[in-house]
Amino acid sequence: MKQAWKVPEPTLRRLPWYLAFVKLLKGRGEVVVSSTQIAKEINVDPSQVAKDLSFINITGKTRVGYEVDTLVAVLEDFLGFTSRHKAFLFGVGSLGASLLHDTGLRQYGLEIVAGFDVREEMRGRLINGIPVFHMRDLPAKQKEYGATIGVITVPVERAQEVTDRIIGAGIKALWNFTPFRIRVPETVVVQNTSIYAHLAVMFNRLNAINPEV
Amino acid sequence: MKQAWKVPEPTLRRLPWYLAFVKLLKGRGEVVVSSTQIAKEINVDPSQVAKDLSFINITGKTRVGYEVDTLVAVLEDFLGFTSRHKAFLFGVGSLGASLLHDTGLRQYGLEIVAGFDVREEMRGRLINGIPVFHMRDLPAKQKEYGATIGVITVPVERAQEVTDRIIGAGIKALWNFTPFRIRVPETVVVQNTSIYAHLAVMFNRLNAINPEV
Repeated sequence: MKQAWKVPEPTLRRLPWYLAFVKLLKGRGEVVVSSTQIAKEINVDPSQVAKDLSFINITGKTRVGYEVDTLVAVLEDFLGFTSRHKAFLFGVGSLGASLLHDTGLRQYGLEIVAGFDVREEMRGRLINGIPVFHMRDLPAKQKEYGATIGVITVPVERAQEVTDRIIGAGIKALWNFTPFRIRVPETVVVQNTSIYAHLAVMFNRLNAINPEV
Repeated sequence: MKQAWKVPEPTLRRLPWYLAFVKLLKGRGEVVVSSTQIAKEINVDPSQVAKDLSFINITGKTRVGYEVDTLVAVLEDFLGFTSRHKAFLFGVGSLGASLLHDTGLRQYGLEIVAGFDVREEMRGRLINGIPVFHMRDLPAKQKEYGATIGVITVPVERAQEVTDRIIGAGIKALWNFTPFRIRVPETVVVQNTSIYAHLAVMFNRLNAINPEV
């Protein structure tokens, strides 16, 4: 995560593709990989791959390429996947509970340490070993855990109110899964992941190709 | 979903934001909404909102705006959320099982009717009422269910092989949750949703704002 700022978002979105491919090569026992090889596999211009990789602290050898082991390690570190980012999840409904079940997040550096909900009956539950607290306990629990990230999976009509409370509790980055455009101060990071918006794009493209579906 | 093709992807991604906001207004009992109001809320240019809404079959009234009820109904229909798209999910691991638990997908038009896995011990299980079959049963089950969408949540190293089998079974659109760049024929739709790539972007921005974290 060192000197990781000023990296363009398109680069940050492509680097995990490269990582996935290089990990695959590692699993196959490959030792070196060239940027041309990555470019071909990912269907990106080779100069773009070289440019993207110039942001991370690795040097390839001319006409040989990058060491696979080193590239995997450096990419994982650079992308923050080897760090441990403590997170709270807000709104333990269907999607929220699903994310608590996804152990993959932890492998990518996100450790959800607690869930919060306004429903009294959720209080004290354990989901996949993760405790659920009432929303009113947020300030106390934040003192205890010191989370830096808030995952927002509440209903749309509560999104802004919950956002304000999370920020009030001192959380610095929000991963917003709701289709609501939350407003935050400039010092707070927001990452929007509206999986239902992706559905809309897919349905539209499917309909364009197969109008009868 | 009528005449929905040729809609630019950025528009398709913004329309669900508008829908979420207008549904919120509906819940509050509001009757009309102007494009200026939407623009202000979503933090988009008003002319952009008007342009985006010009793709859907709705007309606003000058100086009044759009009827909230109609706008909700037309947007939901246009985005495909009122249709029923049958889907198979491939790879009932942590993320795959999570998605089977997310009943929200059904509300947005995606009905996952079955899961598939290569592990024998998964065969015959029911997750959230959805049956899990062995991968080898795909051709037979596709005849039975006629799914149009494949949700891919397999490990990276199996992504391409599974993609090829799904396409071979006649499925027309793939929702790829793996960080692997799958290759498909031109007639097949791919929607990539790499939530771990979003994590990388968020970690990076968080680190830029709070280098000590």
